[in-house]
Amino acid sequence: MINIALLGFGTVGKGAYEILTNKKDSIKRVVGEEVQVKKILKRNLNFKTEIDKSLFTDNFEDIILDEDIKLIVEMTGDVEKSYIYIKKALNSKKHVITANKGVVSEYFEEFLEIADKNKVAFLYEAAVAGSIPIITPLKSQVITNDISRVRGILNGTSNFLLTNMQVRKSKYDEILKEAQDLGYAEADPYDDVEGVDALRKLRILSTIAFKSSIKNEEILRRGMSTIDLNDILYLEKHRQKIKLIAESRMEDGAFKSVVEPVILEVGDELYGIDGAENIVEIYGENYGSLSFAGEGAGSLPTGNAIVSDVIDALGGNYYPVEITRHLENKSSDIYAKYYIRINRKINLDGENWIHSFENHEDYIIVSTNTIKRSFLLDKIRELNLSENEYFFARFN
Amino acid sequence: MINIALLGFGTVGKGAYEILTNKKDSIKRVVGEEVQVKKILKRNLNFKTEIDKSLFTDNFEDIILDEDIKLIVEMTGDVEKSYIYIKKALNSKKHVITANKGVVSEYFEEFLEIADKNKVAFLYEAAVAGSIPIITPLKSQVITNDISRVRGILNGTSNFLLTNMQVRKSKYDEILKEAQDLGYAEADPYDDVEGVDALRKLRILSTIAFKSSIKNEEILRRGMSTIDLNDILYLEKHRQKIKLIAESRMEDGAFKSVVEPVILEVGDELYGIDGAENIVEIYGENYGSLSFAGEGAGSLPTGNAIVSDVIDALGGNYYPVEITRHLENKSSDIYAKYYIRINRKINLDGENWIHSFENHEDYIIVSTNTIKRSFLLDKIRELNLSENEYFFARFN
Repeated sequence: MINIALLGFGTVGKGAYEILTNKKDSIKRVVGEEVQVKKILKRNLNFKTEIDKSLFTDNFEDIILDEDIKLIVEMTGDVEKSYIYIKKALNSKKHVITANKGVVSEYFEEFLEIADKNKVAFLYEAAVAGSIPIITPLKSQVITNDISRVRGILNGTSNFLLTNMQVRKSKYDEILKEAQDLGYAEADPYDDVEGVDALRKLRILSTIAFKSSIKNEEILRRGMSTIDLNDILYLEKHRQKIKLIAESRMEDGAFKSVVEPVILEVGDELYGIDGAENIVEIYGENYGSLSFAGEGAGSLPTGNAIVSDVIDALGGNYYPVEITRHLENKSSDIYAKYYIRINRKINLDGENWIHSFENHEDYIIVSTNTIKRSFLLDKIRELNLSENEYFFARFN
Repeated sequence: MINIALLGFGTVGKGAYEILTNKKDSIKRVVGEEVQVKKILKRNLNFKTEIDKSLFTDNFEDIILDEDIKLIVEMTGDVEKSYIYIKKALNSKKHVITANKGVVSEYFEEFLEIADKNKVAFLYEAAVAGSIPIITPLKSQVITNDISRVRGILNGTSNFLLTNMQVRKSKYDEILKEAQDLGYAEADPYDDVEGVDALRKLRILSTIAFKSSIKNEEILRRGMSTIDLNDILYLEKHRQKIKLIAESRMEDGAFKSVVEPVILEVGDELYGIDGAENIVEIYGENYGSLSFAGEGAGSLPTGNAIVSDVIDALGGNYYPVEITRHLENKSSDIYAKYYIRINRKINLDGENWIHSFENHEDYIIVSTNTIKRSFLLDKIRELNLSENEYFFARFN
């Protein structure tokens, strides 16, 4: 019998518990012993449940001091508390599985080091792209392959909003409100729609893929919340779609990382990824690209990734993350063509960075030549536009 | 130092050797010891190479009797010889990696049993969908998930032909000839275009996914070689594409498995998989589906999958295949709507299985209502059509 503990019993915690219970026999056959949830940490113990109430505790000490507990699954979502929980658990030689991208992205290298020092597993498949097995294959691929590019649709909420605006020809605010009512979007959607969530996941993927620490603050970011139905309709006419894409590239021995809206053509691998679906694509020297798609969130999808990690940790079936170099950050050197919609009439005659523009009743649509991203931001700043007066997206 | 041997030194063998050599250091860091190719089996030793000639042998005994060799990689492509090689190697307690879908699909259960008995690894990631990691994640997914459906585009050659016919509006024979000249298709393309190759891969995937032996001869099969440019143009008008799809489903506790041309709509996950690309999609109880796409063949893509297996085998990082039940085969009970093109004018008035039909100059196009697949085959037989006089595909 192997005892484990769960920290947090929300949507994801319940999903993980359900799978651990229902798949007890097949897990036992693979791991060699029965895996049992001995304790569950929960802030508020005054609640109803069908599960044995004696499993629950509101005191982390009950778990960390219990030498019988070999592994903890951290699913609190709280960055500061979970940082302490994870560190203490690793230092107590307990394996740690987490679904918390916030804390992983913030303290990735530190956790890897502590886990390594204590010879325990630190796994976080559920923190990136929900149900999709991507961390495990990526750690394997980097042994045999130099990875030159990672990109993906890593946030289901923003993709859900974009897809529904397009399919239903509805405004951003309407779709967001509906998504919030249905529980598909948070009351405060900032992290999802402004690319913060996708950026954290990109930071984890890029660090593993490029074998160099690529921190949250090194990645450029622009969200999709200022998008207008007019943008979507305009691009749809050209059979194009907008997606919030997280992407890191290796170029001339440096890395470039950005999360921003990108305009995709029909043939693109990411074009068909609609609704709350996620996808990750990696480019290796031994092949063009590999892509991995599936549900990026939800109780059972995320729970499934967690339980896979539990099995890997207990069986010792996982590869290390190697950070063997320090790559220069050239994200400020990104060059591309951009689409810009501006809700104001401005004179662009003689501007040689403009490829073409169209005047509409209340706004103009501009296509740029290939320009430096920072140049674009400077130009926007010069125009003194408020956040809601413009939207831009990169042509892929 | 861990010594291994390669059997076969064709396209795939060279790719695997190149990666093993170039990635020696990173493989050593993960495995703990240097992995060295000590012997390479090759039929004809009269050839030029930059590799140390003393590594090569034409005698399998040199390898099987060498106790220093801990692992063999079988890449001969020959089913009968490789059966003997693999059995002898496993019985000599050597790990076996193979890229040979022919031999794996023919003797899957036997190899699994012998490997298990001898406590060595038997891995075959490269035998299914080239560079795509699918066997490894699938073996992991079945521990936490009941898989209800597996489908994919598992043959790059036939997909290449279909895509190029559509993109270039060219006839089957022309594209095939060109593909053969370029080396994308074999001189004898039978296994690829008639679905034999895809069927072997489906047999392996379905057996793992459903935990029940699903043998080659239990899977229904229809190729795509009688397709006509008219079929493709007709469907393109409706924004549909034809793909050769391999699919197994669980229904009412039984399985249904078939490889045949399928008509896909724009929204389908498989719609955008063009050219020589492969994709595998699995449906689990804990999520809608996961899909894995990438290059299905080639020297380095396949070599990459082999080297990943070598690392997994030496590190003991792999899960067992569990065959815990015997599912009934209900493949003959498949019901669907079909598209049929017949190069003959026949009277279909009053046939209540016909949904609609169109008369063209030299042929008719029929859409059926939902019918039993075997009923369709009976009807085609009744018409005494020669193989080249008709083509059918399932509507998805």
